Amino acid sequence: MSTTPAATPDTASQQPPPPAHQRSWLVPSLDWLLIFVPVAIALRFVPGLENQTALFIVSCLAIIPLAGWMGRATEHLAEHLGQGVGGLLNATFGNAAELIIALFALSKGLDGVVKASITGSIIGNVLLVLGLSFLSGGVKFRKQEFNRTAASINATALTLAAIALVIPSVFHQAAAIVPVAQGGWTPAKEHSLSLAIAIVLIITYCLTLLFSLVTHKELFVGGQSHGMFAEVGKERTEAEEHGVGWSVKKSVIILLGATALVALVSEFLVGAVEGARETLGLTEVFVGVIVVAIIGNAAEHSSAILMAMRNKMDLSLGIALGSSLQIALFVAPVLVFASYLFGKPMHLEFTIPEVVAVVASIIIVEQISSDGESNWVEGVQLLSVYAILAILFYFLPDAHHAAAAASDVMPAATPAHP
Amino acid sequence: MSTTPAATPDTASQQPPPPAHQRSWLVPSLDWLLIFVPVAIALRFVPGLENQTALFIVSCLAIIPLAGWMGRATEHLAEHLGQGVGGLLNATFGNAAELIIALFALSKGLDGVVKASITGSIIGNVLLVLGLSFLSGGVKFRKQEFNRTAASINATALTLAAIALVIPSVFHQAAAIVPVAQGGWTPAKEHSLSLAIAIVLIITYCLTLLFSLVTHKELFVGGQSHGMFAEVGKERTEAEEHGVGWSVKKSVIILLGATALVALVSEFLVGAVEGARETLGLTEVFVGVIVVAIIGNAAEHSSAILMAMRNKMDLSLGIALGSSLQIALFVAPVLVFASYLFGKPMHLEFTIPEVVAVVASIIIVEQISSDGESNWVEGVQLLSVYAILAILFYFLPDAHHAAAAASDVMPAATPAHP
Amino acid sequence: MSTTPAATPDTASQQPPPPAHQRSWLVPSLDWLLIFVPVAIALRFVPGLENQTALFIVSCLAIIPLAGWMGRATEHLAEHLGQGVGGLLNATFGNAAELIIALFALSKGLDGVVKASITGSIIGNVLLVLGLSFLSGGVKFRKQEFNRTAASINATALTLAAIALVIPSVFHQAAAIVPVAQGGWTPAKEHSLSLAIAIVLIITYCLTLLFSLVTHKELFVGGQSHGMFAEVGKERTEAEEHGVGWSVKKSVIILLGATALVALVSEFLVGAVEGARETLGLTEVFVGVIVVAIIGNAAEHSSAILMAMRNKMDLSLGIALGSSLQIALFVAPVLVFASYLFGKPMHLEFTIPEVVAVVASIIIVEQISSDGESNWVEGVQLLSVYAILAILFYFLPDAHHAAAAASDVMPAATPAHP
Repeated sequence: MSTTPAATPDTASQQPPPPAHQRSWLVPSLDWLLIFVPVAIALRFVPGLENQTALFIVSCLAIIPLAGWMGRATEHLAEHLGQGVGGLLNATFGNAAELIIALFALSKGLDGVVKASITGSIIGNVLLVLGLSFLSGGVKFRKQEFNRTAASINATALTLAAIALVIPSVFHQAAAIVPVAQGGWTPAKEHSLSLAIAIVLIITYCLTLLFSLVTHKELFVGGQSHGMFAEVGKERTEAEEHGVGWSVKKSVIILLGATALVALVSEFLVGAVEGARETLGLTEVFVGVIVVAIIGNAAEHSSAILMAMRNKMDLSLGIALGSSLQIALFVAPVLVFASYLFGKPMHLEFTIPEVVAVVASIIIVEQISSDGESNWVEGVQLLSVYAILAILFYFLPDAHHAAAAASDVMPAATPAHP
Repeated sequence: MSTTPAATPDTASQQPPPPAHQRSWLVPSLDWLLIFVPVAIALRFVPGLENQTALFIVSCLAIIPLAGWMGRATEHLAEHLGQGVGGLLNATFGNAAELIIALFALSKGLDGVVKASITGSIIGNVLLVLGLSFLSGGVKFRKQEFNRTAASINATALTLAAIALVIPSVFHQAAAIVPVAQGGWTPAKEHSLSLAIAIVLIITYCLTLLFSLVTHKELFVGGQSHGMFAEVGKERTEAEEHGVGWSVKKSVIILLGATALVALVSEFLVGAVEGARETLGLTEVFVGVIVVAIIGNAAEHSSAILMAMRNKMDLSLGIALGSSLQIALFVAPVLVFASYLFGKPMHLEFTIPEVVAVVASIIIVEQISSDGESNWVEGVQLLSVYAILAILFYFLPDAHHAAAAASDVMPAATPAHP
Repeated sequence: MSTTPAATPDTASQQPPPPAHQRSWLVPSLDWLLIFVPVAIALRFVPGLENQTALFIVSCLAIIPLAGWMGRATEHLAEHLGQGVGGLLNATFGNAAELIIALFALSKGLDGVVKASITGSIIGNVLLVLGLSFLSGGVKFRKQEFNRTAASINATALTLAAIALVIPSVFHQAAAIVPVAQGGWTPAKEHSLSLAIAIVLIITYCLTLLFSLVTHKELFVGGQSHGMFAEVGKERTEAEEHGVGWSVKKSVIILLGATALVALVSEFLVGAVEGARETLGLTEVFVGVIVVAIIGNAAEHSSAILMAMRNKMDLSLGIALGSSLQIALFVAPVLVFASYLFGKPMHLEFTIPEVVAVVASIIIVEQISSDGESNWVEGVQLLSVYAILAILFYFLPDAHHAAAAASDVMPAATPAHP
């Protein structure tokens, strides 16, 4: 389980950093979105401006650059803390923005959105991010190559984590047809199961950290890397600032500030989601799988695409796969534990369309990683699968709501019999 | 997304064309089936000879050589039209025989047969064609090698296309349990969905053509190739006739003649299918998945096997995978569009056994392409999976008919209530 | 379809056999379990000691070393019988212990346990055995490499066999919703189908034997190998005893003795399984998938792990994959045929959780085999998937029992109507 940054020196030497004027065009592309932070605050607190849908959209846009700043601050701070602790920091806070949004959603009982955002992150990283990376990189370069072995190793880790995550849902479906009296699962038993699985996942995560930060840390390039949870800010800042680090103080202040703002805007976003859903006609699953997953991972997305445009395909793949891995092994179990602290236990059962979409993504990522090269048409094909999934999730009726509606109907119908 | 013909020069140089006497044994093996064209016409039009089952079987046999002549004529014409237009012609008419049969079936409302023939083509190419190729090639050569990277690239394209094609069916199943009142899918919504997906598929197809005929055309060998939709006739004619091209006039006449005969015999075949199905006890799905898929792809099948017997495994794999890709990205959406023109909209939802069979084929093709070599026992194993699927499809009850039967019962039962 | 032993000489030369004191610690690790053979006999026959649960557990433990002795005796005997017959012996009796247990279970009508032990063997070999191998090998060696091509070939054979084995279950589910009157499957039709599929599987097995013992036998290293069904005892005895073979007489006596004891203890185990299941609260599926699968394959398990600790990863993978292949292509159909001899026909339909677990294992084994190297964290990840599956199978309600209970309720409810 080596990691992608190992391949950096080679590709970097082949591909000099772009000149400053080009960088300035590429890099700060998302910071202008910071304008939406005050707009969101205004929409939320200024009387007369209340509009759930507008607030939802603006909050989504505002979180994107904030998540990027969180990533960069974490990265700079990690440099000061040394390899071990720094790597841990990176691996743990790499998906902090998404975790914060999910925690707020959890506290409001939006389980469907939270779970959908977990699967959506995996699908989005594999199909949307790699699709855009292959396409935007492929437009500049005829053929892009990457280290087949490194990609395969990351893909294997992701496959195992994703299978561990979604397989309980299949058992849930099988158990659901058995009445409780014959051993069918009670809600209490389902929660125990989810807790047990979350514990297995988090232990796997800790051992994976042990592997990439302690026992096999020298696999990862010279003190700068993040183990197998390849992260965002580092490579971007490296390219941007050529080693001009931030001080500890600056890093901490920016980290705290960005985190506070992400928390604030996440609260807006989650508060507005129900109103916006109804106005826009979106289902919980669509909001989770497509909207929240894109917002929460926007920083990774833009970094992966940037790396592809610089022909650093190993980094591009590493970011997409590493982020997915972290979602499956760390974010998902942490959310289960948090749901218990909130007194609203969440189980880890996904809908069949979510399971199928994740499995399809796994099969695809494995194919891609085994071929060792990419071009623009592979990007188009990945995006077409993503587009089809997005269309389907948009139209998919909300199973939870439908089930609730059905159970509303059932008792009403029953008294009619006698 | 390079293509298989790129590998031709190497393998061809290693393996000289077989001497003439051997060629004459191998090549015209299907042309004697042309005898069934007049037999089919006689069965259809001569009074007293009417027999639906005989007509069905004879029509099936008659289409096989006609499809081969269509392929060869297309190929010769393509040579005269130059690389770009010629490639387009090849890529578009490569599965013309199957398309014609499907259009006739569609016009008679045989949706089940049409959809089954789409999935059957993918399964048949991966399991039956590659199985027979590996077996027949493996009997002559102890071990056959192919370009692992090229095979992987084609397999990835096929995986993405096949997943895009079948994944809506899973969502359909999930949506089907939700009543329309709670957001379940109405027939109108399902048709819109199928149309949207067909549009995504055809756009992907056009961009794939752009890739293989324009932006990356030099990946494909010297003006003779067909992009990634490796086609049949070319390689056969090359081996057969050693560069003796047909004139434009000859090509056009043969193409028009063969197409007209295919259309005629397809009309016989489709007209007789219902009668033959009942006499022979076959379901719609079996006729589509096994019978029509084999007939429609017989030309590709024989070419792929021929190439394997000449140890040109790259071509063999390229034909099988390229033909499947064209079915998924071009034939399937064209049939959806045509169904609207006929005023009998067809949606792209497949039965779960079809979905599972396609997914199994994808997993298998990926395994095969990643190992880079074949031998006769791999052929046996592929054929055994195909045999098991054929047995199962033979016995699988007809879901459409069963549903129709059930809905016949329902209304009958309803009046009993009051 | 080469085989793993082909790689032995290389890895063996790199890695000298461990010194005697280390071997003595590693090798006879399971023989002390022979103490449980008399204990099992006592529990079964000494009045007053009857305890189903204790007998079940002790029988499980007693079979483990006996299976190992059977394997070793088979191996030594095979050496005397020459390459062809010896290879056949090895390939046929490699999973004899598991087959004996399954035959006893079959004779008592424990179909659920038998079928679950088939899928459990595949899952267990891929996840548990390879997981423990990668982990125990990875603790000693930073990185372990194996022949990617050989692993891929074995993985392809396993994929095809496993798909052929489980795909009928999906068709069964699809057919189950269709009433018999509209073509739904009667029990008689299901049994014919299972028989047809078993025949296809056993033919494939015979042709695979032909391949590895006759047509391509020289692919397998110098007369010592076992074709693609890499077996256990050989490599262990080679390491242990450095070529000190057993005489034919000794081999036959030990083989007969061990087989008789395995049969005896299997009879205890199967007789006690129902009582133990109820006391321990285990379902049939759990007993089959987890308990019987581990017991029946313990010899393979310990050999594969031992090979991994000696850095012979090719052998380790070969044993795990070869054993799975033999289960799918030989043990499963033999059990179907045996069920007819017993007059209690068993069909080859598995539960959906079993199918999904097997498919997940296939996807994983393919990923692993394509990357060509392993380390301890990959072992941890495989074990975590196994742990999650074990937890889920533990809690999964017993579909057969539930269905029986449901059908008990139905007739009781029916008389209430009039």
